[in-house]
Amino acid sequence: MSRQITELTEPSEWQAAFPVLRELRSHLTEESFLDRLDSMRSDGYRLFATVEEDELVAVAGVIVHTNFYYDRHAFLYDLVTTESRQSEGIGAELLAHVESWAREQGCETIVLESGLWRSDAHRFYEDRMDYEKYTYTFKKSLGSDNQSTEDG
Amino acid sequence: MSRQITELTEPSEWQAAFPVLRELRSHLTEESFLDRLDSMRSDGYRLFATVEEDELVAVAGVIVHTNFYYDRHAFLYDLVTTESRQSEGIGAELLAHVESWAREQGCETIVLESGLWRSDAHRFYEDRMDYEKYTYTFKKSLGSDNQSTEDG
Repeated sequence: MSRQITELTEPSEWQAAFPVLRELRSHLTEESFLDRLDSMRSDGYRLFATVEEDELVAVAGVIVHTNFYYDRHAFLYDLVTTESRQSEGIGAELLAHVESWAREQGCETIVLESGLWRSDAHRFYEDRMDYEKYTYTFKKSLGSDNQSTEDG
Repeated sequence: MSRQITELTEPSEWQAAFPVLRELRSHLTEESFLDRLDSMRSDGYRLFATVEEDELVAVAGVIVHTNFYYDRHAFLYDLVTTESRQSEGIGAELLAHVESWAREQGCETIVLESGLWRSDAHRFYEDRMDYEKYTYTFKKSLGSDNQSTEDG
């Protein structure tokens, strides 16, 4: 059985990744996926995939940023293994690959967000992959300027 | 009393902001601040400040990003009011300004991270500014490739 990790750089590859990515990002259509990907790639977003016997079984999307508290770091936006192939270590292997790539990019740290309700994912990152729970993120919908009027 | 919010775009202004920013980011030196700022500005980071009678009393640093789960959003990296001027609503006013700016940039959402231990900040964002606690961030130090050997 041949399994390898590869970077996806061509539109045909991105389209092949979409069904797997969509298992995590279920609100996306192929059109909105390609549209956002275009903008994200111009900011430096990179998409990696695990391919086994020509079948794409996992994807990971990551970008390198710098800020004042993490310095130069990798931000893992997306990591998903297709449902039928979970619990085989494929996600762990892909994440280790991304960590190694990030180290080569000169990153001090790798960071990711996981929804407060996703306790299975939290166990994966903490217990298996040696990540530390570090901050909360807070978000606010900006809507339009007169949202309160519209809602009222 | 004149108090206004302005964007800082000149090196002399960034240097003036450093003592205030450093109250939040205490590990920075002026040199590392300017060095990282240079890299962050090339990614689109913007720095705003509240100035009162020629004195800089608060700063906010923000960047516009796109990803698959927040779509186009503002990420607030830094918000700090100088200690002697806290609890006067200056931070709330500056944050409202940044939110308004983000809306003008076409952002759907504004997001920020706050360390798990910073419960005063959490109350500010949730109770006063109407933010929702949404995810945990997890981080891992990447160190060098042979860190485990060095540690062992």
